[in-house]
Amino acid sequence: MPEVSPELLMDTVFGHFSTSAIKAAIELDVFTAIAEGAADAAAIGKRTGAAERGIQALADYLTVMGFLEKADGHYRLTPSSAVFLDRRSPAFLGDIHRFLAAPEIVQLTLSDPAAFVRNGGSIGLANMAPDDPVWVEFARHMAPFMGPVAQAIAAHFAGVTPAPRRILDIAAGHGLFGIAFAHQFPEAEVTALDWDNVLDVARENAAAAKLGARFKTLTGSAFDVAFGGPYDMVLMPNFLHHFDEATCVSLLRKARAALAPGGRLAISEFVPNEDRVSPPRPAMFAYIMLATTQSGTAFPASALERMLREAGFRQTKFVPLPPSPQTLIVAEPA
Amino acid sequence: MPEVSPELLMDTVFGHFSTSAIKAAIELDVFTAIAEGAADAAAIGKRTGAAERGIQALADYLTVMGFLEKADGHYRLTPSSAVFLDRRSPAFLGDIHRFLAAPEIVQLTLSDPAAFVRNGGSIGLANMAPDDPVWVEFARHMAPFMGPVAQAIAAHFAGVTPAPRRILDIAAGHGLFGIAFAHQFPEAEVTALDWDNVLDVARENAAAAKLGARFKTLTGSAFDVAFGGPYDMVLMPNFLHHFDEATCVSLLRKARAALAPGGRLAISEFVPNEDRVSPPRPAMFAYIMLATTQSGTAFPASALERMLREAGFRQTKFVPLPPSPQTLIVAEPA
Repeated sequence: MPEVSPELLMDTVFGHFSTSAIKAAIELDVFTAIAEGAADAAAIGKRTGAAERGIQALADYLTVMGFLEKADGHYRLTPSSAVFLDRRSPAFLGDIHRFLAAPEIVQLTLSDPAAFVRNGGSIGLANMAPDDPVWVEFARHMAPFMGPVAQAIAAHFAGVTPAPRRILDIAAGHGLFGIAFAHQFPEAEVTALDWDNVLDVARENAAAAKLGARFKTLTGSAFDVAFGGPYDMVLMPNFLHHFDEATCVSLLRKARAALAPGGRLAISEFVPNEDRVSPPRPAMFAYIMLATTQSGTAFPASALERMLREAGFRQTKFVPLPPSPQTLIVAEPA
Repeated sequence: MPEVSPELLMDTVFGHFSTSAIKAAIELDVFTAIAEGAADAAAIGKRTGAAERGIQALADYLTVMGFLEKADGHYRLTPSSAVFLDRRSPAFLGDIHRFLAAPEIVQLTLSDPAAFVRNGGSIGLANMAPDDPVWVEFARHMAPFMGPVAQAIAAHFAGVTPAPRRILDIAAGHGLFGIAFAHQFPEAEVTALDWDNVLDVARENAAAAKLGARFKTLTGSAFDVAFGGPYDMVLMPNFLHHFDEATCVSLLRKARAALAPGGRLAISEFVPNEDRVSPPRPAMFAYIMLATTQSGTAFPASALERMLREAGFRQTKFVPLPPSPQTLIVAEPA
């Protein structure tokens, strides 16, 4: 007999408290303080400038959730927290909350969720002013999450001949996808396209990667700006999910027109299975898009294939990129 | 070797999306629609007046979370969802989100969580105007959750002699604790104390329970209003957790002074173990109080015993009330 319990309901209704706690812990650098040796609530409070009482309630809840272990009043990091939440770790991911739980996102998500379900879409971030700072938050804080995906995608093309020389990175954001290709192909020149304020982040990352004159920018909306080219590769990382199929098809056509003969399109996306309820992360992504865009979604492979075909592509290949929740889609023009 | 993964971090950062989805589903009565036979996104959309596209993203996410099962595009309720989320079910709990994820609570929780951790307390609901409608939301929507707890507590006193005749229900809210005692002891008269707008809900519930003149009210703050009495029983359901120890002690003293000889105090609370990280629900409750009150918490048994002793009680007994996360505390004056 299946167990009947309200526990899942309670956990879910309390979801915003879990976001609240991880946000507080990262902003106060509680995980780093513990990694550096502060073990009890008093010591962590002293190191983070927070009240012992506040730290105790927070650290106990982080323990309940599984971010910390506690024994005799002393807290320590789990192995996962040590890797991803200690700010000194090269794999530190903590700041993703600055985009994923940004005030603009929380407002869209929680103020009237029945409304965007009823309407089949939200007012949407996509509708915001191009210079909305939330996209700079995205570019700045999602980079550590997307860096490994970008590297995996660039590595997938290692050894292709001829090596791509001209690469366009559409809606480049942090620029890490183009930068990963520039590392993979030392002769290549990368053109990053995005709004100017967002490209500031890409410019910083390209300068840190010492790309020099190999890094160029195109400023504006991917729908309005002429792509130039032709390019040997066009990158379209995590962009299609913001739009409906017709909009995606027109964008894919524009990308195809910018490809040189033998050129390739490389897309990264959250691609759920055809049942749309697995794997969990790409499947739930459709709801995130419902909440935060006018008509975006997580497209299953059949929808992506249909759009690519309509835009004049053939030879579509899907490459899962575990452990990330992303899939690489490679398409070649007919 | 323990598995190192960012999955827990991702789930937690996305917590507000889970609150958002359950809120939307309950407000649109998606679970009831499915229980009544709407099986696919189109049919559920038609029945709930929502876009098919919105319902699909929502129902798929509900499936990922475990509220629904999906096969061949058809959704059905899990056994727990059928019991707790179909509005026609006598155990329907869905509306708890109207208090637990009320705009006031979300604002306190998510706007600047580092601030209340740093300060060791929040501006707090407790600081709100007495007639703040959030307390009416509490009284109205937490009743289905608290009803079974109230009944379990009243049942605990079945057979006590002499049967209590005069009962005071402090911060009565929905009034269900007092009403449960009135059912248990048909000769008893119950006095419910709370703010007047909140007592409207208790009055409705008492009228529905046909208590007639056996139900009386005392209007105002438990700290300011004279309790009257003496009473054979004083009930203090889920009130102490809003305050610091000194405030609790003064309130407990006031309750003791209102007891007749041989009278008893019955408290219900979320009581974590002394480690403060188990069981999960009472332990996490301390963070909820940190986020939503100036100095409230979930007191472990040692703290409750200390406060009760200081207030002149002896003979304290702790009675867990599974499957609820609550504990009954019975105390008798020295």
